[in-house]
Amino acid sequence: MTPPDFTGLDNHQVRLASRPEGLPTRANWQFSTQPVAAPGPGGVLVKTLYLSLDPAMRGWMNEGKSYIAPVEIGAVMRAGGIGRVVASNNPAFAVGDHVNAGLDVQTYCLIPQDQIKRSGMFKVDPALGLTTWLNLLGMPGMTGYFGLLEVGLPKPGETVVVSGAAGAVGQTVGQIAKIRGCRVVGIAGGQAKCDWVVNELGFDACIDYKKGDVKAGLKQHCPNGVDIYFDNVGGEILDLVLTRITRGARIVICGAISQYNNTTPVKGPANYLSLLVNRARMEGIVVFDYADRYHLGIAEMAGYLKAGTMKSREDVVWGLETFPETLLKLFNGENFGKLVLGVAKD
Amino acid sequence: MTPPDFTGLDNHQVRLASRPEGLPTRANWQFSTQPVAAPGPGGVLVKTLYLSLDPAMRGWMNEGKSYIAPVEIGAVMRAGGIGRVVASNNPAFAVGDHVNAGLDVQTYCLIPQDQIKRSGMFKVDPALGLTTWLNLLGMPGMTGYFGLLEVGLPKPGETVVVSGAAGAVGQTVGQIAKIRGCRVVGIAGGQAKCDWVVNELGFDACIDYKKGDVKAGLKQHCPNGVDIYFDNVGGEILDLVLTRITRGARIVICGAISQYNNTTPVKGPANYLSLLVNRARMEGIVVFDYADRYHLGIAEMAGYLKAGTMKSREDVVWGLETFPETLLKLFNGENFGKLVLGVAKD
Repeated sequence: MTPPDFTGLDNHQVRLASRPEGLPTRANWQFSTQPVAAPGPGGVLVKTLYLSLDPAMRGWMNEGKSYIAPVEIGAVMRAGGIGRVVASNNPAFAVGDHVNAGLDVQTYCLIPQDQIKRSGMFKVDPALGLTTWLNLLGMPGMTGYFGLLEVGLPKPGETVVVSGAAGAVGQTVGQIAKIRGCRVVGIAGGQAKCDWVVNELGFDACIDYKKGDVKAGLKQHCPNGVDIYFDNVGGEILDLVLTRITRGARIVICGAISQYNNTTPVKGPANYLSLLVNRARMEGIVVFDYADRYHLGIAEMAGYLKAGTMKSREDVVWGLETFPETLLKLFNGENFGKLVLGVAKD
Repeated sequence: MTPPDFTGLDNHQVRLASRPEGLPTRANWQFSTQPVAAPGPGGVLVKTLYLSLDPAMRGWMNEGKSYIAPVEIGAVMRAGGIGRVVASNNPAFAVGDHVNAGLDVQTYCLIPQDQIKRSGMFKVDPALGLTTWLNLLGMPGMTGYFGLLEVGLPKPGETVVVSGAAGAVGQTVGQIAKIRGCRVVGIAGGQAKCDWVVNELGFDACIDYKKGDVKAGLKQHCPNGVDIYFDNVGGEILDLVLTRITRGARIVICGAISQYNNTTPVKGPANYLSLLVNRARMEGIVVFDYADRYHLGIAEMAGYLKAGTMKSREDVVWGLETFPETLLKLFNGENFGKLVLGVAKD
């Protein structure tokens, strides 16, 4: 078999040029182009189709220790994505296979043999929708699924509140909580998102934080208090929910998007002593801890998606070159559904 | 048998006159005197010997819902204490018995039959030291014992940090953690307290927060990070410890004495996202939840006290009339050991 010829193909890349203070700007990024190379022994070459844009990316741009190493200055920005194998020296992956892998923000990704396993690369079924594999069946879905079930520990009849309700993690948390017999109240920005999670996803209610009165909304929609709060936003909303938790409540700390672009110190939850009064718990979750069981979460949710019991909504913005601005949609709440960067249709 | 005659005996009381803003002052209290009455059927009359002064009292003085109802304006201030039964119509308690009960801040306490059980009144062995029953064998001891073991979940070899280390809860937590095979680092105010917990109680180290550099102390004494933080103080120290926690760490929220007299909002832990990065947990504890197992904690610690494996230190200040000022010692850290108000020697 003749090895495929990539002569003349360009790999367009987006690299981190400098560490942002506050919101990242175009000046923090640098575009580069390299020729596409053929894979080495055991390696594969993947063409990027869709990239997952996530709030966590903002943290990776900062210096300093976190649950994962920061992206180095000058490196191609880290991103997970869905791609199509265009060359393979690995028997587990054939040309044409669609895969989920750490592709980074570039149009082609060469994955050496020793990184295939480390990057958690796996084949995906395009019949479920390619972008679904970055949403309910991807990292955000796994985060919501394991965070809710393993840290939130929902019981039927309990009230679950989830912020960022129309986002990737929020969609998953709310729908899984409903399936588990909970009352689910979302918090989202704008009437359209609130209507969607109630009418399409079956949440019991959704509070529009842009209308302002989250406190009154919590009182109205959680008359018996909040048993589980799945927090994606932090800030004022976390403080308000803390005033409404029940005895023994669980607060899952998944993220704090309201604080990621702070140039001032993070706002800690002033009402944290509600944890004491209510013998309640606040606990962090990092999805990677559940990697050996992703397949279980995927299998369960793929079943629901096929049956129509769960729905998945992605907000796809096209063009690698739009990456700097598209990423910002996460932080001003403009995305409606899981934010995805469309790079190539096939 | 002739019933005892209490004619002419006075019950001196301290009542809450008004709700304080910030530190309570003498103006928030009101002294009253009532004649001592004989107990009704099934009731007992107890002479107050020692009263437990606790940080939680500050919270009881505030209006509003908490884990326990506030003390009403005009009511005798709530306090647990050790007393001697001076009249009894209850077969379970004989005149001369020493008891631990909710006596409130007064020289005599009449306990009706229906309150004996509700108040958790029980006989104490004076051979272990009367004030020990307000310390390691009392509420603070139970708080430390169950808080550490049931919420902190210590494992041998783990590093436990406890603030308020020389206080009632801190003494218990540190000594029980040592017995369970942990490395124990205290945080206390002043060299004398630090020396005492290390030299007398066997802590591995103690950081003097009055010297200022808690951060450096944590780095020095917890080289492998903090697995369990038992927090009695909140504020800046909680934030500093959060930067040093290990993966899967447990933070037991027992109190926040640094914040109780705030006239500004409580300072929430700005570094709470360390819970996320470290998949760690912050959880509140209220001692009453363990009431049905107090006897187990008492039995274990009484054994250690008899064997000399544990020590108990109380700071007794004499005179009911000193109550307003004595209580303040808790908030400026002047007490050395569990703060006790001595009311009568016998």
